[in-house]
Amino acid sequence: MRNVTEDTITGAVIARHAGAADARLRDLMTSLVQHLHAFARETRLTEAEWFAGIGFLTEVGHITDDKRQEFILLSDTLGLSMLVTAQNHRKPPGFTEATVFGPFFSESAPQIDPGGDVGQGATGEPCYVRGSVRDGAGAPVAGAEINVWQADADGRYDMQYTDLAAPRARGVLRSDADGRFHFKSIVAESYPIPHDGPVGRMLEALGRHPWRPAHLHFMIKANGHDSLITHVFRNGDKYLDSDAVFGVRQSLIQDWVRHEPGPAPDGSVSPVPFHTLDFDFVLSRG
Amino acid sequence: MRNVTEDTITGAVIARHAGAADARLRDLMTSLVQHLHAFARETRLTEAEWFAGIGFLTEVGHITDDKRQEFILLSDTLGLSMLVTAQNHRKPPGFTEATVFGPFFSESAPQIDPGGDVGQGATGEPCYVRGSVRDGAGAPVAGAEINVWQADADGRYDMQYTDLAAPRARGVLRSDADGRFHFKSIVAESYPIPHDGPVGRMLEALGRHPWRPAHLHFMIKANGHDSLITHVFRNGDKYLDSDAVFGVRQSLIQDWVRHEPGPAPDGSVSPVPFHTLDFDFVLSRG
Repeated sequence: MRNVTEDTITGAVIARHAGAADARLRDLMTSLVQHLHAFARETRLTEAEWFAGIGFLTEVGHITDDKRQEFILLSDTLGLSMLVTAQNHRKPPGFTEATVFGPFFSESAPQIDPGGDVGQGATGEPCYVRGSVRDGAGAPVAGAEINVWQADADGRYDMQYTDLAAPRARGVLRSDADGRFHFKSIVAESYPIPHDGPVGRMLEALGRHPWRPAHLHFMIKANGHDSLITHVFRNGDKYLDSDAVFGVRQSLIQDWVRHEPGPAPDGSVSPVPFHTLDFDFVLSRG
Repeated sequence: MRNVTEDTITGAVIARHAGAADARLRDLMTSLVQHLHAFARETRLTEAEWFAGIGFLTEVGHITDDKRQEFILLSDTLGLSMLVTAQNHRKPPGFTEATVFGPFFSESAPQIDPGGDVGQGATGEPCYVRGSVRDGAGAPVAGAEINVWQADADGRYDMQYTDLAAPRARGVLRSDADGRFHFKSIVAESYPIPHDGPVGRMLEALGRHPWRPAHLHFMIKANGHDSLITHVFRNGDKYLDSDAVFGVRQSLIQDWVRHEPGPAPDGSVSPVPFHTLDFDFVLSRG
């Protein structure tokens, strides 16, 4: 291509990829280049704006390390993560919907016995959670691996503290022969995504807040069923209509019932107010 | 937006930016989000591919520092830089066309007297360059500031060496009362863009080489005229049809004439072969 012009450059770039060994990569790059160029054309992007974009991405790259992933935050806040999740987990009605994975999962969560304490000292009013795992025909799914993780009363995950000796507010359980599970934890609260970096400045410039409505993360795996990564959101949270990462689905909002001090589901008498949450998961299959 | 779905999420993200204080930023983000989401939809981007993309951008961010700008390389190799340049410098026929700025300009280039040596010890056969700066009516532009920079015989710019005490193969000249300039340098050679990082691996996966055809960079500024950032390419270079950054325009290709040892344009007798290059620049206005 000896004479690249504004009108011919997109075709020239795409043609350059004709020899890519991986046809899927070639198709991805074709679509990417078309949309990248269309964005620049539609907006008639200026050189100063292009340079500002280069500077922004550079900042995103430089704040990213093994504990902070600002590119994922960027994808989350632009709705890309939720779109990719949704289109890869289309479900018929009746099956539990998926939502974003988020950056706070950990492989080091402890095993929790039925009824055990997931909170492990995390701050917050007690919350007793129980539920079931079933298939599309209503049959119980026994022995499902249930990963749960959440923020504490201050809206922080354990990995956001530097001084914790062990994981807390996260754990791994198994569903019983009837597909049921239950555990004790603390009640989740809404929290802001990390917003002291370039993505936070982007949100501010766009007139957006960084908050996510309170939720409990679940990842459920069982042989013969599709893995499910989802949240249960807390009904009444003021950010349900404006989740910073666009993860809310109506079917995932549940009442987290607050109770005054007194008899609790585990047979104890709670000296403080506590919450109960019931949620049933329905797994799809291949 | 309490129930974000695959079909509603793009509108939900765009609506979230309605309150942006800067209307241009809002419009840019509207177009960006539309195209980002359309890319994910058209390709039905998988979660593994999304994650690979996050990993790639993270690598681009981590290799970028104050000496290496891998995001600009990425923009260059995907044709975005040249598209932005072209659409911001549309010229009627007869005016010198612009091309990409590239990452090798330096503010520290020395002033060079008329006929002086730009090479300053850089390796390569001598090259005598002369030309003029004119306006659209053919009138000379006197006193134009002419920045010139180039790669050496090994295809490297001075800033790619770690052991140089002073700039070389770059300089700043002024056009004379007749709009003319001339200087001595070395002949530029084709070179590969830095390809030991993620962009290099991307090019390899796409079956692309990293080479740029030989060229001399010019940045010309004169009061009352548009600044011009361009190259003069060396006719006959084998990469003219496959420039890794899509910067070639037919009007910028010129014969660099090779001469056997003997009398040179500066009155000396060259003991080695040398080259001559003539090029006339026409500046646009407003």
